Amino acid sequence: MKTSHIRLKTKGNTDIINITPHIEKIVKNEAIQDGILFLQVIGSTAAITTMEYEPGQKKDLKALLEELIPYRSDWAHNFTWGDDNGHSHLRSSFLKTNYFIPVTEGALDLGTWQQVVLIDFDTRVREREIVVKIVSE
Amino acid sequence: MKTSHIRLKTKGNTDIINITPHIEKIVKNEAIQDGILFLQVIGSTAAITTMEYEPGQKKDLKALLEELIPYRSDWAHNFTWGDDNGHSHLRSSFLKTNYFIPVTEGALDLGTWQQVVLIDFDTRVREREIVVKIVSE
Amino acid sequence: MKTSHIRLKTKGNTDIINITPHIEKIVKNEAIQDGILFLQVIGSTAAITTMEYEPGQKKDLKALLEELIPYRSDWAHNFTWGDDNGHSHLRSSFLKTNYFIPVTEGALDLGTWQQVVLIDFDTRVREREIVVKIVSE
Repeated sequence: MKTSHIRLKTKGNTDIINITPHIEKIVKNEAIQDGILFLQVIGSTAAITTMEYEPGQKKDLKALLEELIPYRSDWAHNFTWGDDNGHSHLRSSFLKTNYFIPVTEGALDLGTWQQVVLIDFDTRVREREIVVKIVSE
Repeated sequence: MKTSHIRLKTKGNTDIINITPHIEKIVKNEAIQDGILFLQVIGSTAAITTMEYEPGQKKDLKALLEELIPYRSDWAHNFTWGDDNGHSHLRSSFLKTNYFIPVTEGALDLGTWQQVVLIDFDTRVREREIVVKIVSE
Repeated sequence: MKTSHIRLKTKGNTDIINITPHIEKIVKNEAIQDGILFLQVIGSTAAITTMEYEPGQKKDLKALLEELIPYRSDWAHNFTWGDDNGHSHLRSSFLKTNYFIPVTEGALDLGTWQQVVLIDFDTRVREREIVVKIVSE
């Protein structure tokens, strides 16, 4: 089993970043033909999922998250640390910090319009680390 | 690592399909005693999860999705392509397109009333492909 | 591939239990240096995710679940079995019953404040079983 890392800076505040190119680079560099990549973003205020990465869809996803799991100054968590990211934690617990992607014949098993995204819910600029475990032939 | 596929037609519109029999067939055909099956549905308007597959629960899940992530003609995504499936994409990003199931002594590690379901959120009839990677002894 | 189990009692009613110590014990007992743990809780009224496990965040997560996917006596599922846990099933389908955690140099790849939690949504005391499959070097 090999381990790789994706490190990147985010703007926080539900910044949605297409990490598919980073993942494809790992597949190429490690010459993976058949396998699975297991991604885990470290921390409790981010998530990994897939979407069609276009401006309208990004706008919709942000609006939906704000509607369902809104910023609120009075989330109980904010009083624990004098913080303002209670909603960031909740969004992460709902969407979860991990994702796996199968690889067949050297290509990610994704749809034509399906990209893998890191979403950073924290309320400030962050440097994020994604651990990538590779299980392959 | 072996790869199998489940291919099926859906009616779209949050069609919920019990794929457990398809998965059990793979376990039997591949004679898996101990392992894990990794399922990924290709595309950005579907998801895989588990539920008790009975008509009442199916009705509730559809109603809940319509309440939390409703069809709306004015999702920004719909204006990008002149489309009407913005909500389908959002539901998929929330519920995610993948799922793994452990196998022990030749049986799926699921509860008695727990079935694995494919949910197709797209707004039209679709042919779906689920990639199944098998990691086993 | 090795299989381990975590068994514990819950109070139900969205009881949130930190299972990180159980997982760390498995890593230690099995002397895992590099690998992935695949967790699946058996049943259709529970889930596994991560969070910062502190009282305020627990309170917020419970409140959010009650707001988004509320207890309702009239969920259709409740009429199927004369039951009252329709919302428990819905919460499980949304948050899903499984989670994987990479391990590097003998430690879980988690953030400092990130714990793995079992959430039991059922409406009564339960004994829960989590199957843990270990893929490692």
